[in-house]
Amino acid sequence: MKKLPDVQANYPDIPLNLTRVGVTNVKKLVEVARKGKRPIVLISTFDIFVDLPSERKGANLSRNFEAINEVLEEAVSSPIYEIESLCEAVANRLLGCHEYAKKAEVRMRSEYTIKRVSPVTKTSCQDMVEIFAEAVSYRDPEFRSKKVVGAEVVGMTVCPCAQGIMRARAIEEMRKVGIPDDKIEAFLQRMPMPSHNQRGRGRIAIQVHNSERVSLSKIIEIIESSMSAQIYEVLKRDDEALMVYQAHLNPKFVEDCVRTMAYKIVSEFSYLPDDAVVTIAQINEESIHHHNAFAERIATIGELRQELNIK
Amino acid sequence: MKKLPDVQANYPDIPLNLTRVGVTNVKKLVEVARKGKRPIVLISTFDIFVDLPSERKGANLSRNFEAINEVLEEAVSSPIYEIESLCEAVANRLLGCHEYAKKAEVRMRSEYTIKRVSPVTKTSCQDMVEIFAEAVSYRDPEFRSKKVVGAEVVGMTVCPCAQGIMRARAIEEMRKVGIPDDKIEAFLQRMPMPSHNQRGRGRIAIQVHNSERVSLSKIIEIIESSMSAQIYEVLKRDDEALMVYQAHLNPKFVEDCVRTMAYKIVSEFSYLPDDAVVTIAQINEESIHHHNAFAERIATIGELRQELNIK
Amino acid sequence: MKKLPDVQANYPDIPLNLTRVGVTNVKKLVEVARKGKRPIVLISTFDIFVDLPSERKGANLSRNFEAINEVLEEAVSSPIYEIESLCEAVANRLLGCHEYAKKAEVRMRSEYTIKRVSPVTKTSCQDMVEIFAEAVSYRDPEFRSKKVVGAEVVGMTVCPCAQGIMRARAIEEMRKVGIPDDKIEAFLQRMPMPSHNQRGRGRIAIQVHNSERVSLSKIIEIIESSMSAQIYEVLKRDDEALMVYQAHLNPKFVEDCVRTMAYKIVSEFSYLPDDAVVTIAQINEESIHHHNAFAERIATIGELRQELNIK
Amino acid sequence: MKKLPDVQANYPDIPLNLTRVGVTNVKKLVEVARKGKRPIVLISTFDIFVDLPSERKGANLSRNFEAINEVLEEAVSSPIYEIESLCEAVANRLLGCHEYAKKAEVRMRSEYTIKRVSPVTKTSCQDMVEIFAEAVSYRDPEFRSKKVVGAEVVGMTVCPCAQGIMRARAIEEMRKVGIPDDKIEAFLQRMPMPSHNQRGRGRIAIQVHNSERVSLSKIIEIIESSMSAQIYEVLKRDDEALMVYQAHLNPKFVEDCVRTMAYKIVSEFSYLPDDAVVTIAQINEESIHHHNAFAERIATIGELRQELNIK
Repeated sequence: MKKLPDVQANYPDIPLNLTRVGVTNVKKLVEVARKGKRPIVLISTFDIFVDLPSERKGANLSRNFEAINEVLEEAVSSPIYEIESLCEAVANRLLGCHEYAKKAEVRMRSEYTIKRVSPVTKTSCQDMVEIFAEAVSYRDPEFRSKKVVGAEVVGMTVCPCAQGIMRARAIEEMRKVGIPDDKIEAFLQRMPMPSHNQRGRGRIAIQVHNSERVSLSKIIEIIESSMSAQIYEVLKRDDEALMVYQAHLNPKFVEDCVRTMAYKIVSEFSYLPDDAVVTIAQINEESIHHHNAFAERIATIGELRQELNIK
Repeated sequence: MKKLPDVQANYPDIPLNLTRVGVTNVKKLVEVARKGKRPIVLISTFDIFVDLPSERKGANLSRNFEAINEVLEEAVSSPIYEIESLCEAVANRLLGCHEYAKKAEVRMRSEYTIKRVSPVTKTSCQDMVEIFAEAVSYRDPEFRSKKVVGAEVVGMTVCPCAQGIMRARAIEEMRKVGIPDDKIEAFLQRMPMPSHNQRGRGRIAIQVHNSERVSLSKIIEIIESSMSAQIYEVLKRDDEALMVYQAHLNPKFVEDCVRTMAYKIVSEFSYLPDDAVVTIAQINEESIHHHNAFAERIATIGELRQELNIK
Repeated sequence: MKKLPDVQANYPDIPLNLTRVGVTNVKKLVEVARKGKRPIVLISTFDIFVDLPSERKGANLSRNFEAINEVLEEAVSSPIYEIESLCEAVANRLLGCHEYAKKAEVRMRSEYTIKRVSPVTKTSCQDMVEIFAEAVSYRDPEFRSKKVVGAEVVGMTVCPCAQGIMRARAIEEMRKVGIPDDKIEAFLQRMPMPSHNQRGRGRIAIQVHNSERVSLSKIIEIIESSMSAQIYEVLKRDDEALMVYQAHLNPKFVEDCVRTMAYKIVSEFSYLPDDAVVTIAQINEESIHHHNAFAERIATIGELRQELNIK
Repeated sequence: MKKLPDVQANYPDIPLNLTRVGVTNVKKLVEVARKGKRPIVLISTFDIFVDLPSERKGANLSRNFEAINEVLEEAVSSPIYEIESLCEAVANRLLGCHEYAKKAEVRMRSEYTIKRVSPVTKTSCQDMVEIFAEAVSYRDPEFRSKKVVGAEVVGMTVCPCAQGIMRARAIEEMRKVGIPDDKIEAFLQRMPMPSHNQRGRGRIAIQVHNSERVSLSKIIEIIESSMSAQIYEVLKRDDEALMVYQAHLNPKFVEDCVRTMAYKIVSEFSYLPDDAVVTIAQINEESIHHHNAFAERIATIGELRQELNIK
């Protein structure tokens, strides 16, 4: 076979460094090995980049696929693998393939099947959550590589503001029909009043350097348990009764969800160093509006520890 | 200018009729004239097709743009225009441009700004609803042309099932704290109990032949008023209080929303002929699940009249 | 546990039959067993409906999940399963769960990983195609149940019209530099001229009754081979050279793609009965426009056979 | 009217500062006044945030709507308004409404209709581009406010690598049929060879402080003219011929597009200060792959000037 022209290796007309060059929206079947269990199968979407120096016209994008394919093949057979380590392995291999690059970046996102059991009838069901990971590796060892792992989970949120107003109305209506105040009080301690409630989406991303391990299941648990209630794909009538009741006992603004997640991250990930960066967001698809409510905190774990007074 | 080869006019390798050939996802700024007011401006997306006989390799797709551009220019200056008539005008002109076609189809969809006033503080706000229209025209006058017009509107739905269960629980809790049954009854007649509630999307499409006029504002009103409550982009605290209260007095399944819309269509569009076809659907983005609840009825107005016993 | 109120079983305020009531956007991990191989894992999205009689307020939507869960569990262990048969099994079980329903409908769609080998360097790569299936079952044996199976595949299309024009220009330019006509002719027989080319999406759905088997891999092969070229996620330089060359030797309008697919369906599925219905569509994401080009044929296999003169 | 409980003003359970709290996906009809012309009408989507101090449970989100509504009403009547100034005006007003906030952020995006005239037949057509803007305002005058404005435009890119290979093949084929090398050379100088080509999306965002004006039309022109060719919604045969020909004379990688945009930004916006930050990206929806090619440069204008040696 004759050598074909390699246009990418030419000197470009406009010599300028590029921050990132690569491929996006690459879909891959990923099998993550687990100890003593069948591997988890993920349909993942990858974005894969390297930087490009000013003297080179183009990056050889097909090498990105060689890097990812080699890593994915190994991932099936090797003992245990986290998705952020998988991204890191691809990033490191990219630096090998692209000899001109100083930095490599890999991002992946995937739907991930989790199992839930309904609260009363103990009916099993699946749900899908979104998981994602990221890695940035540098050729120069002076720069510290980074890894990110996170998830987005759908749950239910009940508005405390509307509930406060409805509670005030309930008191008024109970007085009107002649119920004495002590009984009103006793009843309202047992029975929450209506509000608007909706799908909320909680999102946590944790960025660490090097070797700290961040459990994705713990992240998912924190998100789920920071809304008014977690949701289930199958709810029999008794389950639905309990879930709606408990959600109304636990009303949450978007702000509350973010603060609760922050508090739990600081408590649960006590071993993480102060310079780990967390991004925590909550989006409520308001049932009374067409728009969404949104809250976010971006901070280092150290900052959160200080503000929350937790060591 | 020299004549370029016209490949489309060739005889194809595989002579087969095609049901539709055309362009999709064509975005256009549409100005619809109104009597005594400034024209309405819509950013619309069009799909435009003709059928293609077996002996012709391709349709001249650029003619679709000539047809639509001519009609859109006239629409600005002419007195009043409905979006389904605009589609019909384009379809008729397509039959002129594509001398080989027997049928022309035009579909459009657009976001449409409506004004709402909040229920208590009377605060004005905008909301966007989706509107759509369609027209099918035939060259042969034996075939009857068709026009469709419709809308999809977001509102709020409260689940009657969960509310029934919560009501049962409220009765139980009131008895526990010693409230007598007649006061319980009196209170519960004034105060609805909690449930899950969520964004619902109601959708109506009405297909008519020829000249019957179908008011799009009436369609939007029917959809909005068939859910538990209509939503607003701005709600001050008093508005929110009333809206949440009233929504909980008016719980609706997806099934109820569709049946209410059907009833109102039959009542409001009493002049429509029995062979008009309506498609009525409701999608609830359940706050307790990740999936949606859905109900739909497709029927002629005649069938609905008969089932509902309305003449 | 006390019996909770069953609001769905009530008589509705507006007694009207509903065409379909159910759940949409249900995500499920589906494992399809294969003879002598590991099962295929699909992340599938289901829509599941039954009809609802006028005298019933609501359908018990949680039963849809029982039906689907039972079928999915069996699917893992049973020998071989097509996705349309899986839909049919769910539909049949729905008729068992919803004793009031006369009809059940199940739709699923999924991304499906296929393997490809590049044309010259024989590099392996994965690609994702969209697959989908549908089943409609009736309680009354007089109505014939239906099954649909299909796929949508991305490939490359080269425009014959622009290529014809560029060929005319090439002839002109060759004459200008003094190349004799016989050499021009000889060269242009070996070397195709430029055109615009783009991502195209071909789509086939085949609807059958009862027991006919429709191979999904054959459908995918037909779609891929009906465009100018199939695409690959990894192409080394020699592969890219051959692929671009061959695509330009095989220019195709959207119309040509649909007709080619129709011809191949009739040839490859010669055993299908005349009343099988096929929907064949091609969408080109034109590189010279912001809009898409589209062609479609909907017909029975019998009609296609007659028009194409194939028995 | 009785005073309703103001739950948002409470002290939260977990006192933690929040980076941003607000509303997303707010759709608004925006009319931007122009000197001596009819106003431009945009259907815009806004995200609107303030920060929240640790001692406050919630932000009063309905105030965001008051802020935006007031600004939008003024925008219709006031002389000339850029979209980034509109965002800035909303951000400043938010600081007035939310007395507890130190920072306000407003983002908007919109489709914007532009007019194009085809290159040969001079046929007029519309196209839609995406425009966006952003503003960040601080209460403390020590922090400098920021404004961003940008656009994303679809065009056509021809791959230089595949074209180089096809050119090599054309030379080979011409030699085979006996065309002498000088005529080959002369012909190939006049006639570009095939390649794969596709929809590309160029994107520029420019961030400035204070009062510098950045022309959005200039940004759109730079993006369009940095790909192989700009696209048109209507092309008659002669237009298509010229456009495909010229695009093939001007092949561009994603890397080339980004570098060309960077060069033009530095040339055209010579008055911008060195600390203005530009983000320049190109995404090619490759016709030979299912994935996209991507390149990006993020830099200050000062850095670009230095690397490109332009003062």
